[in-house]
Amino acid sequence: MATIEPAARALLEAPNFAHVATLREDGTILNVPVWVHVEGDDVVLNSAEGRAWPANLRRTGQITVTVSNTENPYEFVSITGHLDREDSETADENINALAKKYLGQDEYPFRQPGEVRVKFLIAPDRVYHNAP
Amino acid sequence: MATIEPAARALLEAPNFAHVATLREDGTILNVPVWVHVEGDDVVLNSAEGRAWPANLRRTGQITVTVSNTENPYEFVSITGHLDREDSETADENINALAKKYLGQDEYPFRQPGEVRVKFLIAPDRVYHNAP
Repeated sequence: MATIEPAARALLEAPNFAHVATLREDGTILNVPVWVHVEGDDVVLNSAEGRAWPANLRRTGQITVTVSNTENPYEFVSITGHLDREDSETADENINALAKKYLGQDEYPFRQPGEVRVKFLIAPDRVYHNAP
Repeated sequence: MATIEPAARALLEAPNFAHVATLREDGTILNVPVWVHVEGDDVVLNSAEGRAWPANLRRTGQITVTVSNTENPYEFVSITGHLDREDSETADENINALAKKYLGQDEYPFRQPGEVRVKFLIAPDRVYHNAP
Protein backbone atom coordinates (compact mmCIF):
# COMPACT_ATOMS: atom_id res chain seq x y z
CA MET A 1 0.00 0.00 0.00
CA ALA A 2 1.35 3.38 -1.00
CA THR A 3 0.24 6.77 0.24
CA ILE A 4 -0.97 9.71 -1.80
CA GLU A 5 0.80 12.71 -0.30
CA PRO A 6 -1.08 16.04 0.01
CA ALA A 7 0.45 17.71 -3.08
CA ALA A 8 -0.44 14.69 -5.24
CA ARG A 9 -3.84 14.47 -3.62
CA ALA A 10 -4.50 18.07 -4.65
CA LEU A 11 -4.18 17.00 -8.31
CA LEU A 12 -6.91 14.40 -7.76
CA GLU A 13 -9.15 16.84 -5.93
CA ALA A 14 -8.91 19.51 -8.64
CA PRO A 15 -11.01 19.02 -11.80
CA ASN A 16 -8.15 17.42 -13.75
CA PHE A 17 -8.90 14.45 -15.98
CA ALA A 18 -7.32 11.07 -15.32
CA HIS A 19 -6.04 8.71 -17.97
CA VAL A 20 -6.80 5.16 -16.88
CA ALA A 21 -4.79 2.31 -18.36
CA THR A 22 -5.94 -1.29 -18.16
CA LEU A 23 -4.87 -4.50 -19.84
CA ARG A 24 -7.05 -5.86 -22.64
CA GLU A 25 -7.53 -9.60 -23.00
CA ASP A 26 -5.24 -9.58 -26.04
CA GLY A 27 -2.37 -8.19 -23.91
CA THR A 28 -2.49 -4.67 -25.36
CA ILE A 29 -3.33 -1.65 -23.23
CA LEU A 30 -6.49 0.45 -23.19
CA ASN A 31 -5.85 4.04 -22.10
CA VAL A 32 -8.74 6.51 -21.86
CA PRO A 33 -9.54 9.80 -20.11
CA VAL A 34 -12.07 9.73 -17.26
CA TRP A 35 -13.20 11.78 -14.28
CA VAL A 36 -11.49 11.00 -10.99
CA HIS A 37 -11.62 11.79 -7.31
CA VAL A 38 -10.14 10.57 -4.03
CA GLU A 39 -11.72 9.22 -0.86
CA GLY A 40 -9.63 8.36 2.17
CA ASP A 41 -6.63 6.49 0.77
CA ASP A 42 -8.43 5.31 -2.36
CA VAL A 43 -8.70 6.71 -5.87
CA VAL A 44 -12.35 6.91 -6.95
CA LEU A 45 -13.49 6.14 -10.51
CA ASN A 46 -17.01 5.86 -11.88
CA SER A 47 -18.24 4.11 -14.98
CA ALA A 48 -21.24 2.31 -16.42
CA GLU A 49 -21.77 -1.43 -16.69
CA GLY A 50 -20.72 -2.74 -20.09
CA ARG A 51 -17.79 -0.42 -20.66
CA ALA A 52 -14.38 -1.79 -21.57
CA TRP A 53 -12.04 -0.49 -18.89
CA PRO A 54 -14.17 -1.67 -15.93
CA ALA A 55 -14.22 -5.15 -17.49
CA ASN A 56 -10.42 -5.08 -17.77
CA LEU A 57 -10.13 -3.82 -14.18
CA ARG A 58 -12.37 -6.59 -12.88
CA ARG A 59 -10.59 -9.28 -14.87
CA THR A 60 -7.02 -8.26 -13.97
CA GLY A 61 -7.65 -6.49 -10.66
CA GLN A 62 -5.21 -3.75 -11.66
CA ILE A 63 -5.14 -0.28 -13.18
CA THR A 64 -2.84 2.70 -13.58
CA VAL A 65 -4.41 6.13 -13.10
CA THR A 66 -2.42 9.14 -14.26
CA VAL A 67 -3.56 12.68 -13.55
CA SER A 68 -1.75 15.60 -15.13
CA ASN A 69 -2.18 19.12 -13.88
CA THR A 70 -4.23 21.06 -16.46
CA GLU A 71 -2.43 24.22 -15.50
CA ASN A 72 1.04 22.67 -15.71
CA PRO A 73 1.10 19.43 -17.70
CA TYR A 74 4.67 18.71 -16.58
CA GLU A 75 3.25 18.03 -13.11
CA PHE A 76 1.48 14.70 -12.81
CA VAL A 77 0.74 11.91 -10.40
CA SER A 78 0.66 8.31 -11.58
CA ILE A 79 -0.92 5.71 -9.35
CA THR A 80 -0.65 2.00 -10.04
CA GLY A 81 -3.17 0.24 -7.88
CA HIS A 82 -5.57 -2.63 -7.44
CA LEU A 83 -9.32 -2.87 -7.15
CA ASP A 84 -10.06 -2.37 -3.47
CA ARG A 85 -13.85 -2.60 -3.81
CA GLU A 86 -16.87 -1.65 -5.89
CA ASP A 87 -19.79 0.32 -4.57
CA SER A 88 -23.03 0.26 -6.58
CA GLU A 89 -25.14 1.80 -3.84
CA THR A 90 -23.41 5.18 -3.89
CA ALA A 91 -22.50 5.11 -7.60
CA ASP A 92 -25.31 7.45 -8.67
CA GLU A 93 -24.63 9.92 -5.89
CA ASN A 94 -20.94 9.76 -6.80
CA ILE A 95 -21.45 10.43 -10.54
CA ASN A 96 -23.55 13.47 -9.61
CA ALA A 97 -20.75 14.69 -7.34
CA LEU A 98 -18.31 14.24 -10.23
CA ALA A 99 -20.66 16.17 -12.55
CA LYS A 100 -20.62 18.96 -9.97
CA LYS A 101 -16.84 18.88 -9.84
CA TYR A 102 -16.19 18.77 -13.60
CA LEU A 103 -19.25 20.48 -15.07
CA GLY A 104 -20.65 22.56 -12.23
CA GLN A 105 -23.96 20.71 -12.61
CA ASP A 106 -25.93 19.12 -9.75
CA GLU A 107 -26.93 16.13 -11.82
CA TYR A 108 -24.91 14.03 -14.28
CA PRO A 109 -26.29 15.09 -17.68
CA PHE A 110 -24.99 12.27 -19.91
CA ARG A 111 -26.95 9.37 -18.46
CA GLN A 112 -28.19 6.88 -21.06
CA PRO A 113 -31.49 5.00 -20.75
CA GLY A 114 -31.01 1.87 -18.62
CA GLU A 115 -27.46 2.84 -17.68
CA VAL A 116 -26.19 1.24 -14.46
CA ARG A 117 -23.39 3.22 -12.82
CA VAL A 118 -20.65 1.62 -10.79
CA LYS A 119 -18.13 3.22 -8.47
CA PHE A 120 -14.65 1.74 -8.14
CA LEU A 121 -12.27 2.32 -5.26
CA ILE A 122 -8.64 1.76 -6.19
CA ALA A 123 -6.01 1.14 -3.51
CA PRO A 124 -2.63 2.62 -4.50
CA ASP A 125 0.31 0.20 -4.61
CA ARG A 126 2.73 2.61 -6.22
CA VAL A 127 2.53 6.39 -6.43
CA TYR A 128 4.80 8.61 -8.49
CA HIS A 129 4.38 12.37 -8.24
CA ASN A 130 6.39 14.41 -10.73
CA ALA A 131 6.42 18.01 -9.56
CA PRO A 132 8.95 19.99 -11.61
CA MET B 1 -2.33 -1.41 -39.70
CA ALA B 2 -4.86 1.24 -38.83
CA THR B 3 -5.12 4.72 -40.24
CA ILE B 4 -5.13 7.99 -38.36
CA GLU B 5 -7.89 10.02 -39.97
CA PRO B 6 -7.41 13.81 -40.45
CA ALA B 7 -9.49 14.90 -37.43
CA ALA B 8 -7.55 12.56 -35.14
CA ARG B 9 -4.30 13.58 -36.78
CA ALA B 10 -5.07 17.21 -35.93
CA LEU B 11 -5.00 16.26 -32.23
CA LEU B 12 -1.48 14.87 -32.67
CA GLU B 13 -0.31 17.88 -34.63
CA ALA B 14 -1.57 20.40 -32.06
CA PRO B 15 0.53 20.89 -28.89
CA ASN B 16 -1.53 18.41 -26.85
CA PHE B 17 0.28 16.05 -24.49
CA ALA B 18 0.10 12.30 -24.98
CA HIS B 19 -0.21 9.76 -22.20
CA VAL B 20 1.85 6.71 -23.14
CA ALA B 21 1.07 3.39 -21.51
CA THR B 22 3.50 0.48 -21.56
CA LEU B 23 3.72 -2.81 -19.72
CA ARG B 24 6.22 -3.11 -16.88
CA GLU B 25 8.08 -6.37 -16.34
CA ASP B 26 5.92 -7.08 -13.28
CA GLY B 27 2.77 -6.97 -15.44
CA THR B 28 1.52 -3.60 -14.17
CA ILE B 29 1.17 -0.60 -16.45
CA LEU B 30 3.29 2.54 -16.63
CA ASN B 31 1.36 5.57 -17.88
CA VAL B 32 3.10 8.93 -18.26
CA PRO B 33 2.59 12.20 -20.15
CA VAL B 34 4.98 12.95 -23.02
CA TRP B 35 5.27 15.12 -26.10
CA VAL B 36 4.02 13.61 -29.33
CA HIS B 37 3.88 14.23 -33.06
CA VAL B 38 3.02 12.39 -36.24
CA GLU B 39 5.02 11.59 -39.37
CA GLY B 40 3.42 9.86 -42.32
CA ASP B 41 1.35 7.06 -40.83
CA ASP B 42 3.43 6.79 -37.66
CA VAL B 43 3.13 8.35 -34.23
CA VAL B 44 6.41 9.96 -33.18
CA LEU B 45 7.73 9.87 -29.61
CA ASN B 46 11.07 11.01 -28.25
CA SER B 47 12.84 9.99 -25.08
CA ALA B 48 16.30 9.53 -23.60
CA GLU B 49 18.21 6.30 -23.15
CA GLY B 50 17.71 4.84 -19.68
CA ARG B 51 14.11 5.91 -19.20
CA ALA B 52 11.47 3.38 -18.20
CA TRP B 53 8.82 3.57 -20.93
CA PRO B 54 11.29 3.16 -23.84
CA ALA B 55 12.64 0.03 -22.12
CA ASN B 56 9.10 -1.33 -21.81
CA LEU B 57 8.38 -0.44 -25.45
CA ARG B 58 11.54 -2.21 -26.64
CA ARG B 59 10.87 -5.29 -24.51
CA THR B 60 7.20 -5.74 -25.42
CA GLY B 61 7.14 -4.00 -28.80
CA GLN B 62 3.83 -2.37 -27.92
CA ILE B 63 2.42 0.88 -26.56
CA THR B 64 -0.84 2.78 -26.29
CA VAL B 65 -0.68 6.53 -26.94
CA THR B 66 -3.68 8.60 -25.90
CA VAL B 67 -3.97 12.27 -26.78
CA SER B 68 -6.77 14.35 -25.32
CA ASN B 69 -7.69 17.72 -26.74
CA THR B 70 -6.57 20.39 -24.27
CA GLU B 71 -9.44 22.60 -25.36
CA ASN B 72 -12.05 19.84 -25.03
CA PRO B 73 -10.89 16.92 -22.89
CA TYR B 74 -13.91 14.85 -23.97
CA GLU B 75 -12.30 14.59 -27.39
CA PHE B 76 -9.40 12.19 -27.57
CA VAL B 77 -7.62 9.78 -29.86
CA SER B 78 -6.19 6.55 -28.51
CA ILE B 79 -3.72 4.63 -30.64
CA THR B 80 -2.56 1.14 -29.78
CA GLY B 81 0.46 0.37 -31.87
CA HIS B 82 3.76 -1.38 -32.20
CA LEU B 83 7.32 -0.19 -32.51
CA ASP B 84 7.87 0.36 -36.21
CA ARG B 85 11.45 1.60 -35.90
CA GLU B 86 13.86 3.72 -33.90
CA ASP B 87 15.84 6.59 -35.32
CA SER B 88 18.81 7.87 -33.33
CA GLU B 89 20.21 9.95 -36.17
CA THR B 90 17.33 12.42 -36.26
CA ALA B 91 16.47 12.20 -32.54
CA ASP B 92 18.18 15.47 -31.60
CA GLU B 93 16.64 17.36 -34.49
CA ASN B 94 13.28 15.86 -33.55
CA ILE B 95 13.46 16.84 -29.85
CA ASN B 96 14.25 20.41 -30.94
CA ALA B 97 11.22 20.37 -33.24
CA LEU B 98 9.11 19.16 -30.30
CA ALA B 99 10.53 21.94 -28.10
CA LYS B 100 9.47 24.39 -30.80
CA LYS B 101 5.99 22.87 -30.90
CA TYR B 102 5.40 22.70 -27.13
CA LEU B 103 7.56 25.51 -25.76
CA GLY B 104 8.09 27.82 -28.71
CA GLN B 105 11.85 27.39 -28.30
CA ASP B 106 14.31 26.53 -31.08
CA GLU B 107 16.35 24.23 -28.88
CA TYR B 108 15.26 21.66 -26.31
CA PRO B 109 16.10 23.32 -22.98
CA PHE B 110 15.94 20.32 -20.60
CA ARG B 111 18.87 18.32 -21.93
CA GLN B 112 20.93 16.61 -19.23
CA PRO B 113 24.71 16.11 -19.49
CA GLY B 114 25.45 12.94 -21.46
CA GLU B 115 21.83 12.44 -22.42
CA VAL B 116 21.28 10.34 -25.55
CA ARG B 117 17.98 11.03 -27.24
CA VAL B 118 16.06 8.42 -29.16
CA LYS B 119 13.14 8.83 -31.55
CA PHE B 120 10.50 6.12 -31.77
CA LEU B 121 8.10 5.63 -34.67
CA ILE B 122 4.95 3.77 -33.68
CA ALA B 123 2.78 2.08 -36.29
CA PRO B 124 -0.92 2.21 -35.34
CA ASP B 125 -2.72 -1.15 -35.09
CA ARG B 126 -5.89 0.23 -33.58
CA VAL B 127 -7.15 3.83 -33.55
CA TYR B 128 -10.10 5.11 -31.57
CA HIS B 129 -11.15 8.73 -31.99
CA ASN B 130 -13.78 9.96 -29.59
CA ALA B 131 -15.20 13.23 -30.91
CA PRO B 132 -18.30 14.17 -28.93
